[in-house]
Amino acid sequence: MLFDVLTIFPSLFVSPLEEGILRKARQEGKIRIQLTDIRDFADDRHATTDDRPFGGGEGMVMKPEPLTAAVEKVRAAGNTGRVILLTPQGRRYSQEIARELATESSLILVCGRYEGVDERFRAAFCEDELSIGDYILTGGELAAMVVIDSVSRLLPGVLGCPDSAERDTFSRRLLKHPQYTRPRNFRGVDVPEVLTNGNHAEIEGYRFIEAVRRTLARRPDLLIQEEFTPQESRLLQKHGLLEAIAAVKAGPTG
Amino acid sequence: MLFDVLTIFPSLFVSPLEEGILRKARQEGKIRIQLTDIRDFADDRHATTDDRPFGGGEGMVMKPEPLTAAVEKVRAAGNTGRVILLTPQGRRYSQEIARELATESSLILVCGRYEGVDERFRAAFCEDELSIGDYILTGGELAAMVVIDSVSRLLPGVLGCPDSAERDTFSRRLLKHPQYTRPRNFRGVDVPEVLTNGNHAEIEGYRFIEAVRRTLARRPDLLIQEEFTPQESRLLQKHGLLEAIAAVKAGPTG
Repeated sequence: MLFDVLTIFPSLFVSPLEEGILRKARQEGKIRIQLTDIRDFADDRHATTDDRPFGGGEGMVMKPEPLTAAVEKVRAAGNTGRVILLTPQGRRYSQEIARELATESSLILVCGRYEGVDERFRAAFCEDELSIGDYILTGGELAAMVVIDSVSRLLPGVLGCPDSAERDTFSRRLLKHPQYTRPRNFRGVDVPEVLTNGNHAEIEGYRFIEAVRRTLARRPDLLIQEEFTPQESRLLQKHGLLEAIAAVKAGPTG
Repeated sequence: MLFDVLTIFPSLFVSPLEEGILRKARQEGKIRIQLTDIRDFADDRHATTDDRPFGGGEGMVMKPEPLTAAVEKVRAAGNTGRVILLTPQGRRYSQEIARELATESSLILVCGRYEGVDERFRAAFCEDELSIGDYILTGGELAAMVVIDSVSRLLPGVLGCPDSAERDTFSRRLLKHPQYTRPRNFRGVDVPEVLTNGNHAEIEGYRFIEAVRRTLARRPDLLIQEEFTPQESRLLQKHGLLEAIAAVKAGPTG
């Protein structure tokens, strides 16, 4: 998969791509990341890529010409993928969108800076706009890294075990159950006995109930659309959780 | 403000801290970022920081001892701040939480890897858990960068203009209006005339209505709790938007 990234700070991306799973995925040719410096497409000698907003107000707006020229260059170089602007004004990025993007062969990620890009560039060239969350960053660069990281790990062969990408949190709408590893006793606290007795049905049941408990406590919004099998519902009833789930589904949640 | 970051990939952080606003904030002494390699606290010669989960399942879990030793080292070095685990299981990070964290003098950010940390470490040492969004990353490192970036820009003196941090999207629950800069005509499309006529009341009204329109189209969930002044309500009525807003507030939104 090819990611073309358009940014005024290409050097920001150097070290995050040089470690761990992204490094390995690049080395194995599973992903390719090309950085384009938007400043190279400015037409004055100061390489100006922003200017003051029409109508007044503080901060600067990214000019339409350098952005447009940068998109046209990566298009001309053969990237026919979706142009995605990273901006707090976008639709909210999610694991579902990550899965959708992982089916594409190439993407063009445009990193806005926080006062935004000229609306005419956005309207004419950005086919999608994504926000990684309801907070403000100094620019879209970290958001682009989040998209690259979360999409890449879903590509075939990038993670060691083929199943683990999809068994994570958000593959269904439950937070993950608590995890324990060695030592069996850490500072006086034992691993729960159920996890060490080798009864797989009991272990699955324990993990399911703990996942639901955690989701109810921290992210009840996730449960609103979650469906349970009859077997799961019996387990939830046994642990007295059915009423709490019904209350969440009934709302109001505002 | 001091950020201590605990990670098994400290080198990931190098280039994102060397550019733009974070670089300037570090140079001016407004923020200090200390990276601690959790591997330095492993007690075997392979520097093992993870192990298989009790109860079975794929993937690895971060062992409690190296994490604990790393937290105790930064505590002993004087960081008495909140210990925050970056994990998809955390409460959802938001601009409101960024503002809350910006009032602290120091933080300790713990980067989990995606199968999670041992529950006993979490329960005993993590005072807060944050998720930057409903998607899975290969680790908490990008999430820690997001927290550092979004908190730092709220600190006094970090952004050029003192007001702009708080006038952004999410300072109220509306997406930002479209922005335009020079040239006045770009590929045949003019900047909207209202932005060039110098009538500030008209400009403010135009921007407000466009912000509401964009929020209704893309993120109606943000409007559920938004309140409008009587003057704003009159403007919304004039543009035929009151009914759409009332419909959003009435739900259902699931």
